[in-house]
Amino acid sequence: MNRAGIIHTQQHHHLYLTSSHEAIIRIQTPKGEGVNVTIIHGDPYDWKDGSWQATQTEMKLLKTDDLYDYWSTSVSMPYSRMRYGFKIKTETETLFYTERGFYTERPAEISAYFCLPYAHDTEVFSPPPWVQNTVWYQIFPERFANGNPSRDPDTTLPWGSEPPKPDTFFGGDLDGVIQHLDYLQQLGITGIYFTPIFEAFSNHKYDTIDYLSIDPHFGDEDTLRTLIQESHKRGIRVMLDAVFNHSGYYFAPFQDVLQHGENSRYKDWFHPFELPLQPDGDRPNYETFAFVSSMPKLNTKHPDVRQYLLKVATYWVEEFDIDGWRLDVANEVDHDFWRSFRNEVKNLKKDVYILGEIWHQSSPWLQGDQFDAVMNYPLTDAIQGYALHQQSSHDAQVALTKHLMSYPASVNAVQFNMLDSHDTARILTTSKENKALVKLQYALLFSFPGSPCIYYGDEIGMAGENDPGCRACMIWDEAKQDKDMLAFLTQLIALRKHHPAFGTYDELFFHQSDDPAVLHYQTSTADETLYFVFNRSLATKSITLPKENQEQWMDLFTEKACSTTFLLEQESFRVLQLKRTS
Amino acid sequence: MNRAGIIHTQQHHHLYLTSSHEAIIRIQTPKGEGVNVTIIHGDPYDWKDGSWQATQTEMKLLKTDDLYDYWSTSVSMPYSRMRYGFKIKTETETLFYTERGFYTERPAEISAYFCLPYAHDTEVFSPPPWVQNTVWYQIFPERFANGNPSRDPDTTLPWGSEPPKPDTFFGGDLDGVIQHLDYLQQLGITGIYFTPIFEAFSNHKYDTIDYLSIDPHFGDEDTLRTLIQESHKRGIRVMLDAVFNHSGYYFAPFQDVLQHGENSRYKDWFHPFELPLQPDGDRPNYETFAFVSSMPKLNTKHPDVRQYLLKVATYWVEEFDIDGWRLDVANEVDHDFWRSFRNEVKNLKKDVYILGEIWHQSSPWLQGDQFDAVMNYPLTDAIQGYALHQQSSHDAQVALTKHLMSYPASVNAVQFNMLDSHDTARILTTSKENKALVKLQYALLFSFPGSPCIYYGDEIGMAGENDPGCRACMIWDEAKQDKDMLAFLTQLIALRKHHPAFGTYDELFFHQSDDPAVLHYQTSTADETLYFVFNRSLATKSITLPKENQEQWMDLFTEKACSTTFLLEQESFRVLQLKRTS
Repeated sequence: MNRAGIIHTQQHHHLYLTSSHEAIIRIQTPKGEGVNVTIIHGDPYDWKDGSWQATQTEMKLLKTDDLYDYWSTSVSMPYSRMRYGFKIKTETETLFYTERGFYTERPAEISAYFCLPYAHDTEVFSPPPWVQNTVWYQIFPERFANGNPSRDPDTTLPWGSEPPKPDTFFGGDLDGVIQHLDYLQQLGITGIYFTPIFEAFSNHKYDTIDYLSIDPHFGDEDTLRTLIQESHKRGIRVMLDAVFNHSGYYFAPFQDVLQHGENSRYKDWFHPFELPLQPDGDRPNYETFAFVSSMPKLNTKHPDVRQYLLKVATYWVEEFDIDGWRLDVANEVDHDFWRSFRNEVKNLKKDVYILGEIWHQSSPWLQGDQFDAVMNYPLTDAIQGYALHQQSSHDAQVALTKHLMSYPASVNAVQFNMLDSHDTARILTTSKENKALVKLQYALLFSFPGSPCIYYGDEIGMAGENDPGCRACMIWDEAKQDKDMLAFLTQLIALRKHHPAFGTYDELFFHQSDDPAVLHYQTSTADETLYFVFNRSLATKSITLPKENQEQWMDLFTEKACSTTFLLEQESFRVLQLKRTS
Repeated sequence: MNRAGIIHTQQHHHLYLTSSHEAIIRIQTPKGEGVNVTIIHGDPYDWKDGSWQATQTEMKLLKTDDLYDYWSTSVSMPYSRMRYGFKIKTETETLFYTERGFYTERPAEISAYFCLPYAHDTEVFSPPPWVQNTVWYQIFPERFANGNPSRDPDTTLPWGSEPPKPDTFFGGDLDGVIQHLDYLQQLGITGIYFTPIFEAFSNHKYDTIDYLSIDPHFGDEDTLRTLIQESHKRGIRVMLDAVFNHSGYYFAPFQDVLQHGENSRYKDWFHPFELPLQPDGDRPNYETFAFVSSMPKLNTKHPDVRQYLLKVATYWVEEFDIDGWRLDVANEVDHDFWRSFRNEVKNLKKDVYILGEIWHQSSPWLQGDQFDAVMNYPLTDAIQGYALHQQSSHDAQVALTKHLMSYPASVNAVQFNMLDSHDTARILTTSKENKALVKLQYALLFSFPGSPCIYYGDEIGMAGENDPGCRACMIWDEAKQDKDMLAFLTQLIALRKHHPAFGTYDELFFHQSDDPAVLHYQTSTADETLYFVFNRSLATKSITLPKENQEQWMDLFTEKACSTTFLLEQESFRVLQLKRTS
């Protein structure tokens, strides 16, 4: 056996708790070695007549990528404790793999085995249960709807009168959102993610001036209160966006340091390399987000800064009953701050969703003590790789599998999945205006574990390059809306809501594809199996459902029966359902 | 290349900080692939003319075991941020390895690279600097010396009059330790680790009755105060032992629950499966340490329990100026409790050593936010495997390398290393009374990174089977002491103190050995190289120092010159020194 490729790390993608009495264990073995894997496990204190009372459980092959087979099983722990090791067998060889390495005989010493010393209920990853059934809608408030022109900034341009620029204002506000809640309810979304609404200088509001006030161009406390109450009435949850990594240039403490330098009582709120501060020039002489001098990095290790920001964190939950916090540039803030943040917020309202903006692998923040999820851009990239960049279905399957297997199932189930955002080009533009491929990508996104999000306007066919192009005014003139896309997404949302097999993680099973343009997989629950098949190419493909599925399949979108061999048109997909009959 | 065996996880054994501006990065490649490894790294926001300003640094082959080569380098981060990836080359193939997997061309997208988003100074692993130069001495107070017979329990037996049994008392106390501090100073040790001294029922005191009182058989507050002051005067630090996983049976809150059941205000301080509690019978109906009914598990997630235990943690630091906490069964207590424990203790006294009793791989506790070190039993086992259990020097080297490479160098440098303790047989007994092999093992222990500990009495040749045998009364009758062992250990301690190359981690370099009985390696500092060579067998071995070292070597113990080829007697070792001359 290729021992160098047998890997179990005790990190959460290899070992996680579902309760204080159950752990999920995974191990990777090199692909195609034809092994079978058994886990030997038991309570470390359970001895009888001098021998350890361990039992053996066969592990299941969960997924495969280009390099590894991933094995998994759940193990119960009556006393919340476990020692364990692996027996890995081929036809000719048996290996025992433990914390101490490899043995050819089962090790007698219990100290050789991996140890899960105690499974604390407080250390079970416990996101809010509502998240995995939520479909989000992201609103950039300055551009969604102008519901109250009296709040408009002086420089406001007529709605949609020109393409957005970095410094233009169009007068969008929270009143506008309230007026369109029925529209959102009809679309079927059940959560709104707002980019920042606190007082700030720019149109995007990521440069906060006052974390405890609503930007006067967006509304006041009553507006937000009404917005949240009206959303909740419609079954829609509300998530706000907070920027704790850095403040805006006009944040009063930063202004104080700019003015008073060494004598400012706020100088330790930031990270000056020297004083006085020099915000001009190529690179500022203080730490910032990237090298942007108008976004000075906050010192979240300073007790006063922590106290202030934690007050912000709780204020909006306590006073306005928000349901989620999206945290900007979350990976650059210290873990200790986020642990306190989680404690404070969850103590007030247990099922607040805590979502970090992190674009890369995020395990350190998803251990249960900090975030519930991150912005799942790696999934976006994997989907686009297949749909738009000619990546083969095999390579796409490998990328998707690697990504899923880098987290526990319980994390994947609540990730924040999207095809685009205010920080990327719109999906229609990324897809070169190919609406068929946009639909295909949405279907892929919605079929995956996690809670999907639609960026405002995508549902009515808006296009736009990356910032500022992706931040255009929402089109409310129905004649200019893409009604076909709206109908499609409305149906997709409804289907996802009514079919829990969408996004069922452990049962997401990839089929091997002979055709690099065809990707297919299936998911299932006790009630049904869903079969997803995608054809990103310009050719029609003949699809034959796998043998074991030669039963009565129904197309979920058309509700028509589907034969086991059928033609899949260019740039299209099918979602087929097999109902369990008892 | 065998891609399945190329591994970089971003866990602390692969990525750790030495400051907010420097990271150490390691990667494993399958052994013997003949690769060279370069790291591509840069600030993620450092762009010029649309291209990322990354630099390349060649990595150094640090160690090798049976499966992997381990590569390492330090990388500086002027702005505390980094994206990075690896270039792995053989003569015929070049691979780029990133967070997204393998590429044959250097990936252009920065999002593919591994990310270290921000290096916080508070997240640098920062143990007390004094620890790595400390030599410990472990005292089991009931058995070290009886300095004040007026404190003796009624059932006290004459000192050393019979072998210890689980429930015998011999009258050892803190007065006795004070009286022998000069002896310890002469031995050269610079830290004492005391097993528990708080009021408890048993002779070992791991079943606490009152965490805020000194056991009256051991002394009172004045005794402890004097002991610590007198130790400090002699350059000896003092570490106490706390049992926060469970209390003793006679701990007042537990007694209250036993008596009052459902009506006890303390019932949530423990983990009853049901009430009333049934301490008798095969398995208690409440959670315990192992299945020991007299050691009920404390609920460290209960706010009152936390408050009480954190008060204990700070009380002994604040009032008595102790230098360390050894934490019993530390792996079964929740991480959140230990984080608070560390904060509270370190806020009071920054350089307190926090040592967890954990016998297995301990990375989750050694991230910098909980413990400084753990009881390094895996090292004990590796040493004994070679010295006592006929493990080949090659296999020993593999075990030692694997163990070292499972932690950052900064962790290895302060681990608590020992050959035995109150929880094992004494090393003389484990070694079947072979004193030559005992010395060989001490030399190995002392040469390794970490701070070594001598269990009381080992230095004068005491033997003893596992508990209760290992807890015999210290022999003070000089006629019965092994003076040769005492002289040896006194010299070894002195040598380690005066030669910082003992225990220099990164420069610990194993030499391949053709003889399974001969283990050799070298360590170095700017001033000297030390060459360690061990022969565990009954045969004399001819040793030839490696070519590059054909210089003037000196035997550190005899201070005599040593030729480059010499005979190493059975069951012996040499420590040879090469001084740098400038």
